[in-house]
Amino acid sequence: MADPWQECMDYAVGLARKAGEIICGALKEEISVMTKSSPVDLVTETDQKVENFIISLLKEKYPSHSFIGEESVAAGEGSILTDNPTWIIDPIDGTTNFVHRFPFVAVSIGFVVNKKIEFGIVYSCVEDKMYTARKGKGSFCNGQKLQVSGQKDITKSLLVTELGSNRDPETIKIILSNMERLLSIPIHGIRAVGTAAVNMCLVATGGADAYYEMGIHCWDMAGAGIIITEAGGVLLDVSGGPFDLMSRRIIAASSQAIGERIAKALQIIPLKRDDATN
Amino acid sequence: MADPWQECMDYAVGLARKAGEIICGALKEEISVMTKSSPVDLVTETDQKVENFIISLLKEKYPSHSFIGEESVAAGEGSILTDNPTWIIDPIDGTTNFVHRFPFVAVSIGFVVNKKIEFGIVYSCVEDKMYTARKGKGSFCNGQKLQVSGQKDITKSLLVTELGSNRDPETIKIILSNMERLLSIPIHGIRAVGTAAVNMCLVATGGADAYYEMGIHCWDMAGAGIIITEAGGVLLDVSGGPFDLMSRRIIAASSQAIGERIAKALQIIPLKRDDATN
Repeated sequence: MADPWQECMDYAVGLARKAGEIICGALKEEISVMTKSSPVDLVTETDQKVENFIISLLKEKYPSHSFIGEESVAAGEGSILTDNPTWIIDPIDGTTNFVHRFPFVAVSIGFVVNKKIEFGIVYSCVEDKMYTARKGKGSFCNGQKLQVSGQKDITKSLLVTELGSNRDPETIKIILSNMERLLSIPIHGIRAVGTAAVNMCLVATGGADAYYEMGIHCWDMAGAGIIITEAGGVLLDVSGGPFDLMSRRIIAASSQAIGERIAKALQIIPLKRDDATN
Repeated sequence: MADPWQECMDYAVGLARKAGEIICGALKEEISVMTKSSPVDLVTETDQKVENFIISLLKEKYPSHSFIGEESVAAGEGSILTDNPTWIIDPIDGTTNFVHRFPFVAVSIGFVVNKKIEFGIVYSCVEDKMYTARKGKGSFCNGQKLQVSGQKDITKSLLVTELGSNRDPETIKIILSNMERLLSIPIHGIRAVGTAAVNMCLVATGGADAYYEMGIHCWDMAGAGIIITEAGGVLLDVSGGPFDLMSRRIIAASSQAIGERIAKALQIIPLKRDDATN
């Protein structure tokens, strides 16, 4: 039987590449910055332009599909995940990086059917790295197959996470005390390149052993989530339980053992789910 | 008058590129890891091999010059900076990254005469980015002139720093509380790619607005220090006073104003200087 979603994926890879070209073009121009939830939660005209570009072309080709996009949700559209084929899109993952021209910004596209991720695309456009994964068919970067490190020993691990854009003093304290507990195990180190999607792809390449974060959204995780699992990694909730795409929290690890050890160290930040109705 | 050090610089750029090729070659093989000061202070055979490669060729060509190399110092050689022309070398800045194949590792070469940096070279070999600066002649990356962002407003800044390899609980606490104070100003964010030299070069490109760290060494700063200043940035001590190459601490900023504001936020970690004699 032919793969029913391969054509969607091929089309989306082309769109992601074109979206990346728009972003790289915009990096050469003046960038005008607006703020969203806080003075450090940034958005630009390019975020909106790129999301409109991707969603309008996908809607034209797949009118019966559903769409959840970061900027559409910011503009008031819902983000309830149904069983319908659903595109989950972050036009620029790493908007703060984009604003500063810090060289890691990614277009992230995840495709979900019956609430399961079927394929994911993360295009880190400044680096020109196209990460893709189709369920059951492995993960690739620019055509090269990816494999997580498989590291099981937390004391030999390199982690990636972010300090986030929430500046509530209590949230900052929990984020830093989680880092303190992990560093004290000890671990080899923590890195942060400023985009959830690229951080996760670095775990998929084996360059880091796990990524964790609380406060991100489904559009930050949907594309890269399957890139992790198809590279042999695991997705967990920060509690150590099953991963939930709409929960705004994730551990993406090279092994179940490392994922569970991180979960044990983490104090949980209370968060409103992406699909909360109020 | 001909530039007396240009020939040294041209020769060293060639050596840095060859050293980068050795490192990239080693990334394809099994990496055998040893530890230095702590279970997370790592060193590999490649660090030692690359340092020997660079220093032996430089000594052959410039027998009257002095040398300070990370691995030579670890092996017991001194690191007293005199007025003699001195090469300060880090064969692999980002050894933990190298061990994990996290894709930021750099060869760093600084050349100091009368205690002033005359030129610097940072070759980020996985990215194939060759950063260079000659005093009075500007900074370049792969031939393209660099310019810091010039940002003066800390609340619009993106910073780079590291969590370091010291696992002493008091040191970890100071590092994290410094981050907490900076995040609370607020700032746009903090990134960490795992090498001091590349972090500083990212400031030189304008991609980040400042880098600060305590606990690093002269070989982490000598190459990139002049890349910052020749790109229009400033180097300060973490106290806000003048930068001291042997002090193991630095603020490298896109403007004096941002540098001083960071200094004001930082609690200082007590450290033994690189040129301490006991």
